[in-house]
Amino acid sequence: MQWYLVASLLTLLTSSQGILTTLSMTNGRYRYDYATVPFLAEVFKLLVSSFLLWKEIQKSPPPKMTTDWKSVRLFPIPSIIYLIHNNVQFATLAYVDASTYQIMGNLKIVTTGILFRLFLRRKLSNLQWMAIVLLAVGTTMSQVKGCGEASCDSLFSAPIQGYMFGILSACLSALAGIYTEFLMKKNDDTLYWQNVQLYTFGAIFNMARLLLDDFRNEFEKGPWWQRLFNGYSFTTWLVVLNLGSTGLLVSWLMKYADNIVKVYSTSMAMPLTTVLSLFLFDFRPTLQLFLGIVVCMMSLHMYFAPPSMLIELPKMLNEDSESLLEVYVDRRTDSS
Amino acid sequence: MQWYLVASLLTLLTSSQGILTTLSMTNGRYRYDYATVPFLAEVFKLLVSSFLLWKEIQKSPPPKMTTDWKSVRLFPIPSIIYLIHNNVQFATLAYVDASTYQIMGNLKIVTTGILFRLFLRRKLSNLQWMAIVLLAVGTTMSQVKGCGEASCDSLFSAPIQGYMFGILSACLSALAGIYTEFLMKKNDDTLYWQNVQLYTFGAIFNMARLLLDDFRNEFEKGPWWQRLFNGYSFTTWLVVLNLGSTGLLVSWLMKYADNIVKVYSTSMAMPLTTVLSLFLFDFRPTLQLFLGIVVCMMSLHMYFAPPSMLIELPKMLNEDSESLLEVYVDRRTDSS
Repeated sequence: MQWYLVASLLTLLTSSQGILTTLSMTNGRYRYDYATVPFLAEVFKLLVSSFLLWKEIQKSPPPKMTTDWKSVRLFPIPSIIYLIHNNVQFATLAYVDASTYQIMGNLKIVTTGILFRLFLRRKLSNLQWMAIVLLAVGTTMSQVKGCGEASCDSLFSAPIQGYMFGILSACLSALAGIYTEFLMKKNDDTLYWQNVQLYTFGAIFNMARLLLDDFRNEFEKGPWWQRLFNGYSFTTWLVVLNLGSTGLLVSWLMKYADNIVKVYSTSMAMPLTTVLSLFLFDFRPTLQLFLGIVVCMMSLHMYFAPPSMLIELPKMLNEDSESLLEVYVDRRTDSS
Repeated sequence: MQWYLVASLLTLLTSSQGILTTLSMTNGRYRYDYATVPFLAEVFKLLVSSFLLWKEIQKSPPPKMTTDWKSVRLFPIPSIIYLIHNNVQFATLAYVDASTYQIMGNLKIVTTGILFRLFLRRKLSNLQWMAIVLLAVGTTMSQVKGCGEASCDSLFSAPIQGYMFGILSACLSALAGIYTEFLMKKNDDTLYWQNVQLYTFGAIFNMARLLLDDFRNEFEKGPWWQRLFNGYSFTTWLVVLNLGSTGLLVSWLMKYADNIVKVYSTSMAMPLTTVLSLFLFDFRPTLQLFLGIVVCMMSLHMYFAPPSMLIELPKMLNEDSESLLEVYVDRRTDSS
C-alpha cells in the first residue's frame, strides 16, 4: 500500500471524527461519558491487531516478533507520555480559554519537526522547514475567529503560565509521536505484534484513567464498567470505530512513513472539517478560512513535491531512474 | 547600486507614506486638496530627473537619448492606463466598501506575476509562483479585520459587478507597471531621459485631472492653480517629497530590476506600516497580522533565495562562480 493513500484516508477519517463527535451530541451536550470513547477505541484496535497477528502467525514463514522484556517494556512509554500530556492539558486550560488552547495546539506541528530532527536525526531541507512553519500558520489562520464571534481578543491576554504550559503540551504531544515512530522502526518486527503491545498498554492506561476519575468523583455514579455504554447511540459507536481506525492508520504511517506525514494528514483534516461544516452545520465561511486553506495547500506541495517540480532545473544530462542519480546543470541567471 | 538596497529603501518610504499621510490629516480630515499631491510629486520627479539629466549631458561621453516621435509617443501610455485605472477604481467603490476594496487590492500581486509572464515573457519557477500567491495571501491576512471592528462581514456580500471591477482594477494596475518596465528596458537610453519623458506626461495628465475636477465642481472653489498650496503644512510637503522619491525608486527598479521586485518592496511595506502603527497610533496587534507577516517573510525567502539555499543539493562537483555553471548530484531518497 502506498503511504499517500493511507495518509489521505487518515485525513478523511480525522476530519469526520470532529463531525461525528458533534453529531453524537444531543442539544450540544454529550449524553454519554466521553472518557469511555478512547478506552473502547483502544480495545477495538487491540482486537483488530490481535486478529491480524493471529492470521499472520498461521502463515509461513511466521512473522518476526521480539518478546523479551527489554523490548516489551518500551511500549508503555507512549501511553505514559500521553498521560502526562493529558494533565498538562488540564493545567493549560486553567489559564487559557478553549479557543486560545485550540490555536496553541498548532504549535505541535513545529515541535514535531524539531523533535523529528533532534531525536530521529532526520534532515529536512530549508524549504521543508518553511513548509512546516507555513502548515502551522495555515491551520492557525483557518481558526482565527470572525468578527461577530465572542471572546476573540483574549488571545494575547492570558497569564504567561498558560503559554508555558501550552508549549510544554505541544512538546509532549510531539514527543509521544516521535517515540512511537522510534519504537515502530527500531526493528523489523511485524506491525501487528508492535500494535498488540502498544494497544495492550493503551487499554490498561485508559482503564486506569477511568478508575481514577471514579475515585475523584467518589463513585457517585458507580464504577465505570457498570455505566460503560450508558447513553451510547449508533453515532457514538461510529465515533469509537472512527477513533480506533485513525489509530491503526497512524501506527501504519509511523512504521512505513513518518511523523511529518502523519502531521500533514491530521493537519489537513482541520480545514477539511471546516469546509464540511459549511454544508452540514450551516457554518459561515470567513476570508481567513479560505486564506488558511491556500497556505496549507502550498505547504503540502512545498514539502512533498520533488525539487525538480519546484525549481527550474534547465537540463537533465543524465536521467537514470534506476540509480536515482541525477546530474544536472543549473545556469544561474541574475534576476535584474 | 545594488537592487536590494533600492528595494529596501522603497519599502521604508512606501511604509512611511501611509504614516505621513495619516499625520498630515487634522482631526481625521485633509485640510488640503489631496488631488494636488500626486501632481506636485510628478513635478518634483520631473525637476530631479531634469537636473540629473543636465548633469549627465555635461559629461563625456554624452548619455544615449532616443528623441524621435516613434519612441517618445510611447511614454504617455502608462499615464493613460493610470487614468483609466482611476476611473475603474471609482466604479469599484460604488459597489464595494473601502475595506473590501483594500483586500481586493492584493490581487494586483498575482496579476503582476501573470502579466509579467505573458507580456514580458519572463519565466518563473513553480516555487516562485507559489511565493507570489503566498505574498498576496500574507498581505491579505494582515488586513483581515479583528473581532471588534465594524463592517467586516460585508466581504462576500458585494454585488458581482464589484468583484469584476476589482479584478479589472488589479489588471490595469499591473499592466501599467509591466508597460513601464517594457519602456525602461526596450533600449539603453539613460534612465534620466526616460524619466523626463515619463514625468512630463505624468505632470500633464495630473494637471488635466485637476482641471477636470474644477469643471465638475463648476469652479466653485476657483481654479486649481489658485488654491494649489492651500492648507499645506510641513507634513504635507513631506508627503509630496516622499511620494516623489518612491516614484524615482520605482523607475530605477523598473530599469535595473523588475516588476516582481517592485511588488515585493511595496507589499512588504504593508505589514511594516501596521507594525509602525502599533507604536505611533496605539494600534492593537491581531493574531492575523502576526501570521500575515510570517507568510510574507516566507514568501520573500522562497522567491529570492538561491535554490541551493532552499533545497539540499548534496554535492557540488564543480563550483565555478566565473562561468555560473554548476553541476551537482542529487540523490533522491524516499520519504518513508
